[in-house]
Amino acid sequence: MTFSPDSSLQDLDLPPVADLHDAALADRLQAAIDNKTKPLGALGRLEALALRLGLILGSATPTLIQPQVLVCAADHGLAQQGVSAYPANVTWQMVHNFLAGGAAVSVLARQHGLALTVVDCGVRQPFEAAPGLLSRRLGAGTADASQGPAMTPQQCAQAIANGREVMRGLPGNALLLGEMGIGNSSAAALLLARLTGADIDACTGPGTGLDAAGLVRKRAVLRQVLARHADAHEPLAALCAFGGFEIATLVGAVLQAAEERRVIVVDGFIASAAVLVAQGLRPQVVQRCVAAHGSAEPGHAPLLQALGLQPLLDLGLRLGEGSGAALAWPLLESACRILGEMASFESAGVSRQSE
Amino acid sequence: MTFSPDSSLQDLDLPPVADLHDAALADRLQAAIDNKTKPLGALGRLEALALRLGLILGSATPTLIQPQVLVCAADHGLAQQGVSAYPANVTWQMVHNFLAGGAAVSVLARQHGLALTVVDCGVRQPFEAAPGLLSRRLGAGTADASQGPAMTPQQCAQAIANGREVMRGLPGNALLLGEMGIGNSSAAALLLARLTGADIDACTGPGTGLDAAGLVRKRAVLRQVLARHADAHEPLAALCAFGGFEIATLVGAVLQAAEERRVIVVDGFIASAAVLVAQGLRPQVVQRCVAAHGSAEPGHAPLLQALGLQPLLDLGLRLGEGSGAALAWPLLESACRILGEMASFESAGVSRQSE
Repeated sequence: MTFSPDSSLQDLDLPPVADLHDAALADRLQAAIDNKTKPLGALGRLEALALRLGLILGSATPTLIQPQVLVCAADHGLAQQGVSAYPANVTWQMVHNFLAGGAAVSVLARQHGLALTVVDCGVRQPFEAAPGLLSRRLGAGTADASQGPAMTPQQCAQAIANGREVMRGLPGNALLLGEMGIGNSSAAALLLARLTGADIDACTGPGTGLDAAGLVRKRAVLRQVLARHADAHEPLAALCAFGGFEIATLVGAVLQAAEERRVIVVDGFIASAAVLVAQGLRPQVVQRCVAAHGSAEPGHAPLLQALGLQPLLDLGLRLGEGSGAALAWPLLESACRILGEMASFESAGVSRQSE
Repeated sequence: MTFSPDSSLQDLDLPPVADLHDAALADRLQAAIDNKTKPLGALGRLEALALRLGLILGSATPTLIQPQVLVCAADHGLAQQGVSAYPANVTWQMVHNFLAGGAAVSVLARQHGLALTVVDCGVRQPFEAAPGLLSRRLGAGTADASQGPAMTPQQCAQAIANGREVMRGLPGNALLLGEMGIGNSSAAALLLARLTGADIDACTGPGTGLDAAGLVRKRAVLRQVLARHADAHEPLAALCAFGGFEIATLVGAVLQAAEERRVIVVDGFIASAAVLVAQGLRPQVVQRCVAAHGSAEPGHAPLLQALGLQPLLDLGLRLGEGSGAALAWPLLESACRILGEMASFESAGVSRQSE
């Protein structure tokens, strides 16, 4: 089947994302960092983070306000091909766990005072209304990408519009990306392979925990799916071909957050795949991004490299949900406080480096 | 000169530090971690951290209480040999900066609700009394180790006793190690070389920021100092030979904290050198330790390896003060909350991995 982008995607109203380049502000930030009472560069990558946050928020003393974890959840038709270690109903169960406060991301969000919003983008089984849950369903899971496109252009356009609309409704100036969807490491691997040209086997890992035989099976399925959609080259075409609803909704949220100049904290492999699609549509998106962590999922390192992002944490995480973004969050707060609260050599009366 | 440990060190009353081995508790902790609603091992090294904290605190649901940052400060006679990029009076100036709340560790301690205590262990110029400052001075800086032992056995014994006494007076169940002392990366390098047999050049780095010529000079000085104290092999003998007062005080604090079964959060190169000495005296000390970060100082990686510790953060920090320990602190809190607050598969009604 040849994929033809139809009018619903061609007419898609994507937001402008400006270049953040501001040499004067960068100089002011770097001078402020260098004047703090510490040897030059002694706070390592925290200094680069402070500089980046200042540039994103357009301030020499950036302040993070009302950070929002957005967990987009959906099911994947491809899961029926046995690409995951867990049954598909776990997506639905885990959404309940997020809302009840028992999941890792719930615990970590509570620890750090992060607001948590869960979006049902198309979980197989629908939910009763619940506080903290938004319903933006595009179907009962995507179609099976091994048989045809995972979603229609209309669904894809609607998912992106949903992500933008949800983002517009959330306060604050920072977005932490999260997701849940049994089978979504397959969609992420397919997007990575197609959009960067990387070998699909290198993009494919055990996800939630496939054993060696399961990984062999997953790779065989993904090779076949990739070949089936050989013509889906453009970011949106690839997104339609491989899914999923939660990734497409995150693409919209990322684009909107970038337009609004929010800080975007990227989580693991699947959240990064959404950023990769968004970058394909609006390259400047990545200037707003901070990579929270490097996942144990083998495709994550090449994906972050494609985005030009270096992760803050390297703890062998492979959970998703936004858990890694939440774990890294205090480092962003620290970087801002370094800029805002640390004394300068002058103010503290501390001598500079000897000649 | 041959170093002879005298009676003040031979009679030193060191606390017992028990082996924390508890297979039953380890099994309970691991089972609890594996039953949390996440794929097996998906929280990566946070899971190992949770296990370690549980074993240290002797609980399947460990809770961190009233964490204490202890910053020990002192000057080094060896600094007059030009081994640092900064003038020695910066030690005194930075203590004032800690107390005024403007230093990196002050800012980070405030961010995370960590109590901060600064101990004057022997800064060249004394201080007026101030809230948050303890005076446990052993002299106006150590003697120049290139000319003779940095401290007398009496000073060394007193410093260790001081560290124990200060620790006994602090509440809570967690200690974050910090230090300040122009010249103390030289003392740490000498301790590392002597106690592990590592090559002194490989242990010696730019510290606060020596240039290439300065590093060549520092290495030449340290080779000479190491050779001068060729007989100082035992941990306490090496500590007397190389100093400093702040490192010896930290050794006492570490030993006491270990006896009391507190969690010890190790900061950078110098704090780790104090742990290395303490480990030489009481090997089980390391069971209580969590390495906060891997420093950019080149000696830190082999030092952590000698301790058998893997750092949580790798951000190219090289500031000391306890700043890296404070930055890593939220990860310890997260590990405890994972154990205490995350739902199990049973409690959340989430399906386990498929067969």
